[in-house]
Amino acid sequence: MHTYASTVSVGIAGASGYAGQELLRLLARHPAARLTGAMTSSAGSGARPLPRLNAVWDGTLTPLDIDRLATAEAVFLAVPEDASAELVPALQARGVGRIFDLSGAFRLRDRERRGRWYPAATADPGSLGVVYGLTELARAEIPLAKVVACPGCYPTAALLALDPLMRGGVLDDSSGIVIDAKSGISGAGRTPTERTHFSEVHGSISAYGVFAHRHAAEIEQELGADVTFVPHLVPIDRGILETIYTRVRKGVTAFDIESAYAVAYSNAPFVRLTGDVLPEIKHVAHTNFCDIGWKLDAQTRRLVAVSCLDNLVKGAAGQAVQNFNVAFGLDETAGLL
Amino acid sequence: MHTYASTVSVGIAGASGYAGQELLRLLARHPAARLTGAMTSSAGSGARPLPRLNAVWDGTLTPLDIDRLATAEAVFLAVPEDASAELVPALQARGVGRIFDLSGAFRLRDRERRGRWYPAATADPGSLGVVYGLTELARAEIPLAKVVACPGCYPTAALLALDPLMRGGVLDDSSGIVIDAKSGISGAGRTPTERTHFSEVHGSISAYGVFAHRHAAEIEQELGADVTFVPHLVPIDRGILETIYTRVRKGVTAFDIESAYAVAYSNAPFVRLTGDVLPEIKHVAHTNFCDIGWKLDAQTRRLVAVSCLDNLVKGAAGQAVQNFNVAFGLDETAGLL
Amino acid sequence: MHTYASTVSVGIAGASGYAGQELLRLLARHPAARLTGAMTSSAGSGARPLPRLNAVWDGTLTPLDIDRLATAEAVFLAVPEDASAELVPALQARGVGRIFDLSGAFRLRDRERRGRWYPAATADPGSLGVVYGLTELARAEIPLAKVVACPGCYPTAALLALDPLMRGGVLDDSSGIVIDAKSGISGAGRTPTERTHFSEVHGSISAYGVFAHRHAAEIEQELGADVTFVPHLVPIDRGILETIYTRVRKGVTAFDIESAYAVAYSNAPFVRLTGDVLPEIKHVAHTNFCDIGWKLDAQTRRLVAVSCLDNLVKGAAGQAVQNFNVAFGLDETAGLL
Amino acid sequence: MHTYASTVSVGIAGASGYAGQELLRLLARHPAARLTGAMTSSAGSGARPLPRLNAVWDGTLTPLDIDRLATAEAVFLAVPEDASAELVPALQARGVGRIFDLSGAFRLRDRERRGRWYPAATADPGSLGVVYGLTELARAEIPLAKVVACPGCYPTAALLALDPLMRGGVLDDSSGIVIDAKSGISGAGRTPTERTHFSEVHGSISAYGVFAHRHAAEIEQELGADVTFVPHLVPIDRGILETIYTRVRKGVTAFDIESAYAVAYSNAPFVRLTGDVLPEIKHVAHTNFCDIGWKLDAQTRRLVAVSCLDNLVKGAAGQAVQNFNVAFGLDETAGLL
Repeated sequence: MHTYASTVSVGIAGASGYAGQELLRLLARHPAARLTGAMTSSAGSGARPLPRLNAVWDGTLTPLDIDRLATAEAVFLAVPEDASAELVPALQARGVGRIFDLSGAFRLRDRERRGRWYPAATADPGSLGVVYGLTELARAEIPLAKVVACPGCYPTAALLALDPLMRGGVLDDSSGIVIDAKSGISGAGRTPTERTHFSEVHGSISAYGVFAHRHAAEIEQELGADVTFVPHLVPIDRGILETIYTRVRKGVTAFDIESAYAVAYSNAPFVRLTGDVLPEIKHVAHTNFCDIGWKLDAQTRRLVAVSCLDNLVKGAAGQAVQNFNVAFGLDETAGLL
Repeated sequence: MHTYASTVSVGIAGASGYAGQELLRLLARHPAARLTGAMTSSAGSGARPLPRLNAVWDGTLTPLDIDRLATAEAVFLAVPEDASAELVPALQARGVGRIFDLSGAFRLRDRERRGRWYPAATADPGSLGVVYGLTELARAEIPLAKVVACPGCYPTAALLALDPLMRGGVLDDSSGIVIDAKSGISGAGRTPTERTHFSEVHGSISAYGVFAHRHAAEIEQELGADVTFVPHLVPIDRGILETIYTRVRKGVTAFDIESAYAVAYSNAPFVRLTGDVLPEIKHVAHTNFCDIGWKLDAQTRRLVAVSCLDNLVKGAAGQAVQNFNVAFGLDETAGLL
Repeated sequence: MHTYASTVSVGIAGASGYAGQELLRLLARHPAARLTGAMTSSAGSGARPLPRLNAVWDGTLTPLDIDRLATAEAVFLAVPEDASAELVPALQARGVGRIFDLSGAFRLRDRERRGRWYPAATADPGSLGVVYGLTELARAEIPLAKVVACPGCYPTAALLALDPLMRGGVLDDSSGIVIDAKSGISGAGRTPTERTHFSEVHGSISAYGVFAHRHAAEIEQELGADVTFVPHLVPIDRGILETIYTRVRKGVTAFDIESAYAVAYSNAPFVRLTGDVLPEIKHVAHTNFCDIGWKLDAQTRRLVAVSCLDNLVKGAAGQAVQNFNVAFGLDETAGLL
Repeated sequence: MHTYASTVSVGIAGASGYAGQELLRLLARHPAARLTGAMTSSAGSGARPLPRLNAVWDGTLTPLDIDRLATAEAVFLAVPEDASAELVPALQARGVGRIFDLSGAFRLRDRERRGRWYPAATADPGSLGVVYGLTELARAEIPLAKVVACPGCYPTAALLALDPLMRGGVLDDSSGIVIDAKSGISGAGRTPTERTHFSEVHGSISAYGVFAHRHAAEIEQELGADVTFVPHLVPIDRGILETIYTRVRKGVTAFDIESAYAVAYSNAPFVRLTGDVLPEIKHVAHTNFCDIGWKLDAQTRRLVAVSCLDNLVKGAAGQAVQNFNVAFGLDETAGLL
């Protein structure tokens, strides 16, 4: 275990939501971070107890206070996208050099797409110094970023499985890519709705957002290819599993697939390649790992890849902390194992 | 299977809640009932689709309309207690002779207790012709009732287990009665709250309402004895299991207990005595049965009884239909097996 | 409700498994069936209590006895496929004219495929008078069948969604068909294994049988087209939901899809078309319905169809009873609503 | 965060069971432990992959080898009680000075009780240098122990809630103590049985072991009083919640209860007192905390206390590590936060 001579002061806005609480839990015991403020999403929402964190974190959740938040060297935002759209420039104006934004406000570079899915996010990500922060794919750029737009949970799982195949040139361009995603309910956020009512979810499964989920736009932007993406709600709390269907080029072998992944993730401490033993959510829940496995039917060239992670850790708070580690030159795994 | 020459016209108010939907499902295929109206809880709330009932019931849910509701011979109320407190006199004034009320408005006879737990229910149950309708314990009075106050889910399970022991005189008066109840989430109703959010319930268990649950008052009224009642929320959708702890009088044997139950329920088609094989929720879910088992430690005179049922069927809609059957002289099991 | 002048005597082998218990529950209260024997899967396995069925069915489960079983006019087999492979000829030799087999022994007509997936099933289905009994697609042939090979749960959901599209000629032949299936654990059967251990399943999701599930062969045989089929285990008890990805021919409109389904199922009491409101497992659990919805992206010609059912009812016991109803000229819904 | 100059070599037997895996996870990253061997429960059972621990622990699980195991300074046993009964003397004979036994073999001091519940454990705990290791109640003795008999999960929750009340003299001796316990399924161990089959557990609750659970003997030994203890299986993976019913002496106030707890746990980093906000499993899952809350009805002197913990952490592996920390003079929380 590493010990650090100095620490970075960090603040959190939105610490009472599900991703925010996870962030708080991770940062409270991070060996190189010094938590100077944990705030709610708005000035109006008061302190609430977080019983799970008693005796782990002895601070108090306070209402959002931008000036005080801006005294930290690094700020994590786990707030709705419209709040992020306002907070990022406000914090930069107050001199905050590093912002880790978990919302979707600055993920889409294309103005039209951003306008469709995140209408409140009118600022151009480029002008704010934003980098799209899927750690494994952006390690070189993150240290230069002023704002790290942390990816959505679905895109993280999809891109980690697909990017090495795209870069490796093993996929048949003419065949489509289908991503069938299954997600736990914490991904829907803390606000009670009919969709998140226990009795509506328990014992059931449902598809939603077919041809109309903003995470598809995010996947397509980063992948440079169209995908068919259908998310489903399943009765688990945490975790996402994506089953990806596509086809490889003529002549591509199982060894080529394995090599493409091995090369891509040889130095990635949080990607575990499981080969043809397909991964399961129970092995990644409550961790920052993304597990990826695959099966190739060489004769028909069909490839099925399965990717899974904990939506609140690698899909949200954990990846934000991983980005923080990379940005500040710390061990990438600090506070995450 | 029985067929009936004539049918009774029935109406439902509050058919979109969990108990109301179950009522609708049961009455839509009841061999002696003719559903003439299925309405929501208020005049303002419009029709909503009930996909589970498609092709089972081809009617449409309409907003509450008292005049139209009052054209039925029998009316079922699955509405909040304050709505029941208003609807019962209004329906009686329009000539409805039989009302089956699933709310708590008319369950407590004592004015003070009623005032504490159901402040909206100011009318005296006696003057309205109310009978407390735990079917097995009130079969003789139900045919004479104008209003059947259908019991709560917790009291139904508790009283069916305890009443034969009290009447049989086998319990040691000086020892207390503890009822530890575990309930599925549908008992909390359809309105989304933090309490019913999937992510708050999944993987957890919590006690609530200690020394302060209105169902304790209902149990004590019917039992004529004080109880310590603690309900718990567990991550299942349907079902209640109650573990009851008490002590028997000196000399009481296992045979005495068995006899007390056997005599009480010799003609009760929906009470299944399981002896010392303790019952489990999975055997009663989606049925109108209440299963009761027990263990006696003769040496220390400690008795543990376990009682379980489906909170939406025997604990709500099913028992209301059972009461309807008894009230109209039909086979007690009609539409319930 | 229909009443029947005469009843058919029926026997069950394998009544203690999950599908078998469901069969027992359905036949015990079927208005036109008279249960003359409920047996286990083998002569050696003794009677076991079925607490869920107490007071619903007052018979006793007995060890398998072929001679006694053969006295029934119709026999239901809910036994492993090797047992079915032996029982079907043995029962026919004893004169049983109608057998409803829930196993896979006689589903595959092609000898090579059958040899691969069901090596114990050496007899030729054709010579035994077998009809593949997906009721909605085989209504005309079932009355003529001596043996109805009831379809698997996965194929039932897949074929009901895909068959009308194939027959309607709306699919683009050159594009593949992907079937991503999610199943409850009861589909894995009653034998305890690591796969079915609660702690391995709860909070997790896993894919299995990729490119190697025998239900794919069944789907392909009936559909006359290749499919990519990947089943997943999800932490629910009952129910299957399949998300189907394919592409339509140029010029095909949403209306064409709707028409194809409407024509196919105009007289199908157990298929509910939900249009572009996608179906969910909670609406079909504990029923014999198969709900089908879909979304077409006209511009890219991508079609996503979602099909779901209860694997133990429409996917097993319910469909067997539905086939029994059709075979004996009864109302197709008898005993199933 | 503390760093330690030297480390203690530790070995584990039984590392593939649920408690064993948790032990492995905790010890693999413990700042003062050096894992020298992780073995299965017997010489015959080979290595199996533990996918959850990939990239967390890079060792290999090997078959049990007593000689090699005995080279460690401290040994953890997560094996069945009969294996512990053999291993403890064998390891001591080979010079192992510190053994942390998670089984029940050496928990009961009374020969007769031990003979009834753990017949394989014939050795006298006293002669082996055993201390019953409920950390909070045995901190002074643990450093002197040769063998720490780590408590069962149920007794840990019960004793932490009841011991301060007994010692504080606030309970009414003449009134009984009822402990209604609800447990997750991982407590039943990894072996697949009908009891642990997902479909038998999901949606259900069941009581078991009434008047006949060996943990009652353990609670009674440590408490010095009789209890009525009824455990229940509920459909969660991890966690135990116990609701305890008793009565206080005349004159005892809420302040007295609070004081009794506050005094007992003023220096206990893993006991969190929640006062009259009753604790819930979700706040302790995956942690080493035991949360305790209570409600007193002063008028009737009834006290309801609720205690909960994670059965695999504070109820098993976590407490063993906590005992290891105390035994070796490390920070009590090392490796546990």
